[in-house]
Amino acid sequence: MSVLSDLVAALGSADVEVVDLTAPLGPSTPVLQLPPPFANTIPLSLEAVSAFDDAGPAWKWNNIHTGEHTGTHLDAPAHWISAKDGETVDVIPPSKLVGPVVVVDVRAQVADDPDFLLEPAHLEAWEAEHGRIPDGAWLLVRTGWSARQEDAAAFLNADENGPHTPGPSAQAARWLASERTIAGFGVETVGIDAGAAGGFEPPFPAHYFLLEAGTYGLTQLRNLDRLPATGAVLVVSPLPIVGGTGSPARVFALVER
Amino acid sequence: MSVLSDLVAALGSADVEVVDLTAPLGPSTPVLQLPPPFANTIPLSLEAVSAFDDAGPAWKWNNIHTGEHTGTHLDAPAHWISAKDGETVDVIPPSKLVGPVVVVDVRAQVADDPDFLLEPAHLEAWEAEHGRIPDGAWLLVRTGWSARQEDAAAFLNADENGPHTPGPSAQAARWLASERTIAGFGVETVGIDAGAAGGFEPPFPAHYFLLEAGTYGLTQLRNLDRLPATGAVLVVSPLPIVGGTGSPARVFALVER
Ligand SMILES: Nc1ccccc1C(=O)C(=O)O
Ligand SMILES: Nc1ccccc1C(=O)C(=O)O
Repeated sequence: MSVLSDLVAALGSADVEVVDLTAPLGPSTPVLQLPPPFANTIPLSLEAVSAFDDAGPAWKWNNIHTGEHTGTHLDAPAHWISAKDGETVDVIPPSKLVGPVVVVDVRAQVADDPDFLLEPAHLEAWEAEHGRIPDGAWLLVRTGWSARQEDAAAFLNADENGPHTPGPSAQAARWLASERTIAGFGVETVGIDAGAAGGFEPPFPAHYFLLEAGTYGLTQLRNLDRLPATGAVLVVSPLPIVGGTGSPARVFALVER
Repeated sequence: MSVLSDLVAALGSADVEVVDLTAPLGPSTPVLQLPPPFANTIPLSLEAVSAFDDAGPAWKWNNIHTGEHTGTHLDAPAHWISAKDGETVDVIPPSKLVGPVVVVDVRAQVADDPDFLLEPAHLEAWEAEHGRIPDGAWLLVRTGWSARQEDAAAFLNADENGPHTPGPSAQAARWLASERTIAGFGVETVGIDAGAAGGFEPPFPAHYFLLEAGTYGLTQLRNLDRLPATGAVLVVSPLPIVGGTGSPARVFALVER
């Protein structure tokens, strides 16, 4: 048997399952809210082209209006000033988008503190238990935050001091970018940076350091409870938008039982 | 070794390659042109939200305006009147989107005749050589049409009598929908129906019969020359647009050497 015939057999017998990590993309999908004077992305809207009517008697279809960085989406390097001339989303090698995935579970810490910051020490503790983060792997941070996805206010979790959502510290972002060689960094929250990260040094350090290193960002993931800490395979599928700084993405994990 | 650790090893050694079957999605991506009085989809456009300027000093991002049925895209059953109450794109089970793929090569016939129609006899001849089309497989028709993708006029190939592009006959569409149990039907052209199919009985029979049967359509594929006739695995990734009749999709094939 070959690798792929084994895979097809395992999909058929449900020994390998396809787990959808993608949030539904609709008008109520939460969108990042940056404070003035910064501009924000539009929410998703559909505009009917026809709906079994004179404009199309046998068919229904819509135009889509949305943002590159809306819902479950990939951040390409060219999104950030630290990688201005880096890859746009259409030139990412497909080999980077399919590979091993590891999951770091910080639910307990986030339950106590919505402003929880992931530090290098948490990643080192994970490695002490599970082994070194493999080169080319996707690293996903399981915060439990996707439980809030149906309620945009709870998901964005902002008060007069700004949003309170977990993310990596500047040190952890720098550590991942320079000490390991991951393909991408994924989160359950609206962006890869913590809610308070606009005030960090540098501002939005996950964007700054990870995109600078050519590492991709991946957001608004769900169903991370269905992934093992190691051993699953991720398939990350942004649209190949020509010159795009990112794209809404479908994200599947292959999980073996 | 487990199935997935074998897969990760084979990806690492390039014994399994990720082949991108997706056309780039940009302003010059060809869009279906239906004749009046029918309405058509908008072409893709990007609208800057910020670009390293006052609206976002360290970041660049865009809003996206496009169509559900633009570029490489998936047709969900709810796109067509024959499956009005069928699945929208967001409720397709992920297990249907990852599976075996077979490729039927009709390049020679299409080179002689851009209006070439795939008939049940071509599919039966393929099965005589390669075995029965597996249940749950994606069936892709290799016409060579993607060679025209850089030139929208050549790709749409319309004259005063309408578009001249290959596709299935009504008989072939009915045969696939009723005699076999494929997950989806994919093509290199702008839509799953032939250019002349608006005049067939029923109009657009591939849409009519395949979507009625709960089979998905998949369009504007490229790089089919890199797939074997059997043995590859397809990963089809439409965005889970809530209530959507289809979606631009990323399509990867895993191919073993
Ligand atoms: N944090 C940000 C600050 C500015 C622009 C975008 C972001 C994102 O999170 C994003 O990429 O979704
Ligand atoms: N042929 C059509 C007729 C009407 C509406 C759409 C189509 C498509 O091809 C499509 O789904 O892209």
